[in-house]
Amino acid sequence: MALTVDPHRVIEELRELANFGRRGAGVERRALTPIDVEARRWLLTRMLDAGLTAQIDAVGNVVGRTPHERRLLIGSHTDTVPKGGWLDGALGVIAGLEIARAVNQSDRNAAVGVEVVSFVDEEGYFHHLLGSKVFSGELSLADARTLRNAEGQTLAAALAAGNLASDTLARLDPLQHIAYLELHIEQGPVLETSRTQLGLVTDIVGIRQDRVTFIGEPNHAGTTPMNLRHDAAACLFGFAVDWAASCRALAGSNTVWNLGQIELDPGAHNVVAGRAVAICQYRDVDTERLQRMSAAIRESAAKAAVAHRTEFLIEEQASVSPTAMHPKLINALEVSASALGATVRRMPSGAGHDAMIVGRHIPAGMLFVPSKGGVSHSMAEDTAQPDIRRGIEVLAGAVDQLTHTTFGDLYG
Amino acid sequence: MALTVDPHRVIEELRELANFGRRGAGVERRALTPIDVEARRWLLTRMLDAGLTAQIDAVGNVVGRTPHERRLLIGSHTDTVPKGGWLDGALGVIAGLEIARAVNQSDRNAAVGVEVVSFVDEEGYFHHLLGSKVFSGELSLADARTLRNAEGQTLAAALAAGNLASDTLARLDPLQHIAYLELHIEQGPVLETSRTQLGLVTDIVGIRQDRVTFIGEPNHAGTTPMNLRHDAAACLFGFAVDWAASCRALAGSNTVWNLGQIELDPGAHNVVAGRAVAICQYRDVDTERLQRMSAAIRESAAKAAVAHRTEFLIEEQASVSPTAMHPKLINALEVSASALGATVRRMPSGAGHDAMIVGRHIPAGMLFVPSKGGVSHSMAEDTAQPDIRRGIEVLAGAVDQLTHTTFGDLYG
Repeated sequence: MALTVDPHRVIEELRELANFGRRGAGVERRALTPIDVEARRWLLTRMLDAGLTAQIDAVGNVVGRTPHERRLLIGSHTDTVPKGGWLDGALGVIAGLEIARAVNQSDRNAAVGVEVVSFVDEEGYFHHLLGSKVFSGELSLADARTLRNAEGQTLAAALAAGNLASDTLARLDPLQHIAYLELHIEQGPVLETSRTQLGLVTDIVGIRQDRVTFIGEPNHAGTTPMNLRHDAAACLFGFAVDWAASCRALAGSNTVWNLGQIELDPGAHNVVAGRAVAICQYRDVDTERLQRMSAAIRESAAKAAVAHRTEFLIEEQASVSPTAMHPKLINALEVSASALGATVRRMPSGAGHDAMIVGRHIPAGMLFVPSKGGVSHSMAEDTAQPDIRRGIEVLAGAVDQLTHTTFGDLYG
Repeated sequence: MALTVDPHRVIEELRELANFGRRGAGVERRALTPIDVEARRWLLTRMLDAGLTAQIDAVGNVVGRTPHERRLLIGSHTDTVPKGGWLDGALGVIAGLEIARAVNQSDRNAAVGVEVVSFVDEEGYFHHLLGSKVFSGELSLADARTLRNAEGQTLAAALAAGNLASDTLARLDPLQHIAYLELHIEQGPVLETSRTQLGLVTDIVGIRQDRVTFIGEPNHAGTTPMNLRHDAAACLFGFAVDWAASCRALAGSNTVWNLGQIELDPGAHNVVAGRAVAICQYRDVDTERLQRMSAAIRESAAKAAVAHRTEFLIEEQASVSPTAMHPKLINALEVSASALGATVRRMPSGAGHDAMIVGRHIPAGMLFVPSKGGVSHSMAEDTAQPDIRRGIEVLAGAVDQLTHTTFGDLYG
């Protein structure tokens, strides 16, 4: 007998969860703020009510499991960005809760159970992907506890303020956790514009971020002849146009880049900028292409600096490698979608996810449902209800297959 | 007998004035702040001590005159920008004071006397060139009194707070004021780099300022494919490079332009900018060229908007016509410089000055002394003492000629 889930209940529980920190049609639950802690306690109660063995662990991750020795991890996060949406993260957690409940309450004799997890602080109030990093052993609890949010509060202080005093740390154990699955909104327009119902994530893209600073000379914009200027702003504009042209030449079908944050100093209409800073962020599934885009930054900056008689400096701010999703998990999701008659599209995830961290350690798979208008990280974020329900059902179908999979099947 | 001035005394008095609002090597005296009012009272006392008929008038201008019916106006301003320098403005006022003192104390029988003026708020704490605009009748006292500074204080309130309660308004009168002369630091690098001792200003350039806004769509910079973006930032960069190329093609020898203030919204490294704003400021002595540069803004913006699928909007923020200095005054300054063996260069002023306003109504002339490193509006602003002294002497020599000139001579 197939695993029976109730997608309508998931939507009801998502609505209930959205009451914690509601802002208009959206939600604001920065990790471990009082309202986020309340939401964590609510989730814990829901897990216990579902008959799961559950806890809020020492870093704030909320984890609930069926009694099986080997388990499929299903999860995401329930913290949000400021003025965030009701689905981002929450969908994957509440879908996982529904599936764990179904597994727990079914009379099937599955080889493998389910463990549902809400990773703390995916959105980086203290540190981006904090909960999955601690869970995966990439960040120690001790180090995590010293991290501070924008208000200067340490994670340790936030945990204490929320009376989250557990000594137990939930940890990834490849002997127990056979794989990780995450259902998420796409956060982009690809599914909607291509009229596809589900996205099968092939890779989570690598992200590189470099800070480029041009140093010129601040001068009066009326009295300094053009040929005596060292204009850092004009230099930055030339750099930006040149680097974008290089990126276009280097790009694959999923390559993206952005130059959305710049700073001119002093930044006055009547002063030639003495200093100009640009943040270059670029993403791709191919590490070598990222390397070439990085080299292009240096080339374009050098060219612009010569043309405008400035100096330049490039600082690496981030370099995250791409994470491939596991082919057997992609396949299980595809088979499930096919069985339910859903249209799918293989695609990379341009955004980072907890699956990126966990997927470095055990096989991981991700399923996307469409985002209305491609909008996310916004109170306007939404997904059509049929799309939400379809995502939950396809995920449950894949779990149904996988919980009957032996260890060897998945890794073979 | 020639007019005898003491340039050393001018430097001493400049140092004394710099004690009002001293900041490091510089000065901060925003117009009509308590320290600026103190400085105005000090200046008034100095004028009275020099035997001038003097007052602080109803708008805050400090004016002192010899008893002659017809007078040469000499002046500038004693307010400063935040963290300003000790010479900008102050030099022209204290030099004028010295020359008025010399005229008053000389036993010469000049046809024309001198009136020295410190125009209030040249630097635009309430309104740029406020004092010379009211003096020239371009702005009414009633309107001026309603203007507010960045702290929200009206000019009327600032005058009241400083106990500046005069009912009398000093006004430009072409029947009394035969011409205006202003000695000023260059505020640019031209004299220094060309090793010239003095600048004879031919024109004060016209300034145009347009605000260009590109409206795209804010999107996730990881999940939005490049071909679905409406990137306002990339659009702005393309616009900036294209417009600069047009300006270079259109430019005369003194044309300048600047794009030193831009704003990206939301301005985050991981969000495609949905809105980008640039302030384009450009200056020239030729109104027609300014017109062509303005047309080029529209052309470059339209081209960039098509390329990046954005909308755009151009708003005129300022349009100030060029003001030519009077040939006879330029000549008088040149003759005086030549008599003292000083090297000169005819040049436009790229910065606005009170002479720009007064020069629309009566003949005006401006003399520049070199700025060390071209630096001004900075606490580091300075001019070598021999250069300061030479400027004062050349100005005094020109005044000596002009005060023996008849009305007809100057206008003929």
